[in-house]
Amino acid sequence: MDIKKSKKKIVIIGGGTGVFTVLTGLKPCFDNLTAIVTMADDGGSTGILREEFGILPPGDIRRALLALSDSGDKMLAQLFSYRFEQGLGLTGHNFGNLLITVLERLTNDFEKAVNEAGRILSVKGKVIPVTLGKAKLVAELESGQKIIGETNIDIPKHDGHFKIKKVYLNPSVKINPNAKKAIMEADIVIIGPGDLYTSIIPNLLVGGMKETLKKTKAKIIYMSNVMTKFGETNDFKASDFIKTVLDYLGKDVLDYAVVNNKKPSFKKIASYVKERSDFVEPDVDFKKTGKTSVVKADLLRSGKFIRHDPKKICGLIKMLI
Amino acid sequence: MDIKKSKKKIVIIGGGTGVFTVLTGLKPCFDNLTAIVTMADDGGSTGILREEFGILPPGDIRRALLALSDSGDKMLAQLFSYRFEQGLGLTGHNFGNLLITVLERLTNDFEKAVNEAGRILSVKGKVIPVTLGKAKLVAELESGQKIIGETNIDIPKHDGHFKIKKVYLNPSVKINPNAKKAIMEADIVIIGPGDLYTSIIPNLLVGGMKETLKKTKAKIIYMSNVMTKFGETNDFKASDFIKTVLDYLGKDVLDYAVVNNKKPSFKKIASYVKERSDFVEPDVDFKKTGKTSVVKADLLRSGKFIRHDPKKICGLIKMLI
Repeated sequence: MDIKKSKKKIVIIGGGTGVFTVLTGLKPCFDNLTAIVTMADDGGSTGILREEFGILPPGDIRRALLALSDSGDKMLAQLFSYRFEQGLGLTGHNFGNLLITVLERLTNDFEKAVNEAGRILSVKGKVIPVTLGKAKLVAELESGQKIIGETNIDIPKHDGHFKIKKVYLNPSVKINPNAKKAIMEADIVIIGPGDLYTSIIPNLLVGGMKETLKKTKAKIIYMSNVMTKFGETNDFKASDFIKTVLDYLGKDVLDYAVVNNKKPSFKKIASYVKERSDFVEPDVDFKKTGKTSVVKADLLRSGKFIRHDPKKICGLIKMLI
Repeated sequence: MDIKKSKKKIVIIGGGTGVFTVLTGLKPCFDNLTAIVTMADDGGSTGILREEFGILPPGDIRRALLALSDSGDKMLAQLFSYRFEQGLGLTGHNFGNLLITVLERLTNDFEKAVNEAGRILSVKGKVIPVTLGKAKLVAELESGQKIIGETNIDIPKHDGHFKIKKVYLNPSVKINPNAKKAIMEADIVIIGPGDLYTSIIPNLLVGGMKETLKKTKAKIIYMSNVMTKFGETNDFKASDFIKTVLDYLGKDVLDYAVVNNKKPSFKKIASYVKERSDFVEPDVDFKKTGKTSVVKADLLRSGKFIRHDPKKICGLIKMLI
């Protein structure tokens, strides 16, 4: 037991591996963590289950649960993240996704299923779907082309060179009351990092989210990405990430925008060329815009990949509160 | 906590729903239960997983684990016995079977996988595969026809009117050392009830089983079935069940053969006509044969189906020790 753990209520909003990294970083420092995760995913195992069972997408939920699971039980964690690589009809399916799907079938309630999965995994903290409504993510490119479905934007199935003009949910859906409650009661809300248009903004598009973030007394922090993503954020600099989030949230919501200012080695950056991903330059040409202060820090981990260091995220968040 | 629970070491040998019934009955009365289950199953979800993953069959293991699971966690038990009824490639698969399969993949050890599944399910007691060798069950009919595979005998894929002359395992496999150890250390070994040729005898066919049962100081009890099974035990009376088991085990192994002597109503028996199943008459024309004493008792449960009553099994076993 770490008696130095802060009792502050922290809410993390996002999806994919970004939420995993932040939760992993914050778990040793904070006692009260809640992840609010996007329900826009429709690819891979999740996409199949979504289509065949009509359930909300389990993939992002699974990653957040795993990050919050009691690491004492390694086998259960491995089980939960196991992906079938053989078996007709099973290949590609993730065991954790199947678990959440079956729990949804047994409880007839996606949130209950998530809570049951959390209980089985001895999760410390909460994972909440941002919405209980079922919607597809749609991207409108500058060319006018419309891309329907998160996975088609994410991979990307489109050419990838045209920029995304805007994204929206179809049909429009409302914020999950439990997500709203968690944000209203939070001391700190962290948005991101994560794929901007497919993991972060889908959360902000949910009806009532903007208003809830405006209303809460929590400090709201956006964490910009460290690498661009082809087909989504080509050539984006830190200022582009921040401006895009402000476009969706308004100028008076974010307290802090956090930017990594440590440049990785040329060799490391070069290893990303084949996936057409580039380092996000910490250009930010403003120290403050509207309500938002920009905070720059070295947030990179050592090792082969250019990623946020969970420990440095923890240190930074502790500093900001 | 029931302080009257017996500390005697009980081993149950069988497969399918028979083991489930006996374990369910004995759980409240005995503290130390071990199920040794057949590895001959090759049908349904189990058959697919066996073929596609090359693992030992999880189905009988799953049923035994479920019977021994801590009934306090209903959701986990429901999860473990859930069968997919939709989902391309998932339909027909049992979630508990998938769980055991994934654990086997993660541990590379079927017995470890069974133990891990037991731990996750808070199982009180042990479940042990009768063998770690992979074999098919073969039946030779009186017509000379050979049927290969447990599921083909079980369903049955053969005409069903010819009697089974003998069954054997191909290739021959050896007893699991842990199964041997459990039998040697037991106070009581219960064989059956269960489908005679597909759930019971496959255990007795395993190399070393007969010798171990002969060597152990445990009292050995065979529980005869209450209904016949078409294609396996057509027209069998209690004496036929007992004689068949003695044929495979030898005359000097069984201490008791337990037979139900309560005849169900004509209406109940009639409801089994369409599955060509009939009541097993308690004809036994001997009180004692070789070492074996025949014990007759009312073992039926009330309700629609003609089945063993778990509570009555418990009472009877307590009486015999």
